[in-house]
Amino acid sequence: MAGEGENIMPKEKMNIVVFSGDMDKVLAAFIIATTAAAMGMDVNMFFTFWGLNVLRKKKFTSGKNILQKMMNALNRGGAARLSLSKFNMLGLGPAVMKTMMKRSKMPSLPEMVQTAKNLGVKFTACTTTFSFMGFSKDDFIDGVDAYAGAATFLGEVIDGRVSYFI
Amino acid sequence: MAGEGENIMPKEKMNIVVFSGDMDKVLAAFIIATTAAAMGMDVNMFFTFWGLNVLRKKKFTSGKNILQKMMNALNRGGAARLSLSKFNMLGLGPAVMKTMMKRSKMPSLPEMVQTAKNLGVKFTACTTTFSFMGFSKDDFIDGVDAYAGAATFLGEVIDGRVSYFI
Amino acid sequence: MAGEGENIMPKEKMNIVVFSGDMDKVLAAFIIATTAAAMGMDVNMFFTFWGLNVLRKKKFTSGKNILQKMMNALNRGGAARLSLSKFNMLGLGPAVMKTMMKRSKMPSLPEMVQTAKNLGVKFTACTTTFSFMGFSKDDFIDGVDAYAGAATFLGEVIDGRVSYFI
Repeated sequence: MAGEGENIMPKEKMNIVVFSGDMDKVLAAFIIATTAAAMGMDVNMFFTFWGLNVLRKKKFTSGKNILQKMMNALNRGGAARLSLSKFNMLGLGPAVMKTMMKRSKMPSLPEMVQTAKNLGVKFTACTTTFSFMGFSKDDFIDGVDAYAGAATFLGEVIDGRVSYFI
Repeated sequence: MAGEGENIMPKEKMNIVVFSGDMDKVLAAFIIATTAAAMGMDVNMFFTFWGLNVLRKKKFTSGKNILQKMMNALNRGGAARLSLSKFNMLGLGPAVMKTMMKRSKMPSLPEMVQTAKNLGVKFTACTTTFSFMGFSKDDFIDGVDAYAGAATFLGEVIDGRVSYFI
Repeated sequence: MAGEGENIMPKEKMNIVVFSGDMDKVLAAFIIATTAAAMGMDVNMFFTFWGLNVLRKKKFTSGKNILQKMMNALNRGGAARLSLSKFNMLGLGPAVMKTMMKRSKMPSLPEMVQTAKNLGVKFTACTTTFSFMGFSKDDFIDGVDAYAGAATFLGEVIDGRVSYFI
């Protein structure tokens, strides 16, 4: 701001809470995030609740007690196997959607996750949900930049330009 | 507004991503949009994924291939026949809701769409979803102001005051 | 910032539309709201549509006509008995989630509502939904600060820093 660099403007910041684990909503989140990053914005994505599934490895997460085991048997992770918020039809909907996207030359969700990383989008996994769902860091992909709670995230939000809850 | 312009303040801008096609969420989006426009804000609505259904004509959209035909047989358009996010009960819920709204002298959703247009709310249809769902411009109502992708929309968002993802 | 009142900065304002009545989404809304309030932000929560259920007393709300009675028989209030957006399984999901939260020493949703009040978070109940759903002020808990419509809420939003639609 001060100094000889009159062009040194702070980059506008976009902060997205990814609460949903629905394939269609997560797709929308990543289309927005990668487009904003490509336009030069600083993009933070905070994954919480079902959104954590995007960052989970495909492997089975067992959990530390019987309730966590029950929940995690249903609540499976992996960006490639999320369900749709509408017309899921036991997995037929997502399969149809993926094929439609491929025919339309759209990148798949796992490809978009990789593009987001390449463009410098920052991924934070919510430690609050993380711990009550019984996950451990081993359950997550390498691309996670930080494990933090809501206070850390809101510290970014407070000087951001655009915020979404998806 | 007129004059040498000590009063020429740029209007505050509200940008709403309408992702959902659920009647109740879309209603909330339009209540917010029309209220903000009536208060003098510049309002942009960007319709994507299921939200595109709000701008689709009631007539059947076939799609260009078998998968798009299958999806579009389920995913019907028209602001007057959206389903509820809760208590849909095969269409009973929306019918009950519409009657409750009418008795309470609330405008219907198609009426709110018209009011939004009259107040200058700008409608953009997302071309990305548009193409992979197999829609064409003929499938949409006249009120659509622009067909554009996320980058165009984020260009508006970046100097907006309020952003929502609904 | 400079000047004789060097510490008198207006507090940053966060405005959250709580549209959803799903336990998991409402939890996320309250985690964000209480964290922001604890960090010194001014937080307004505007409860509308299903979100009004958070502020409703547990007792049965009858409604003024047969349709409202039908809807309210299904659409029950009380922060302690909301359903999940996923894996609800006729109430098993929420019970499991509550137990998981308790084991992880997280406060329950009714406790978070109380914490939000203690931290000065302002609760507004949407009068538009309020009237077409057939609710009356007697149906709501004491913590409601205001009964108002979208215009009043947007008056706060317009000079806010962060806005969410949940």
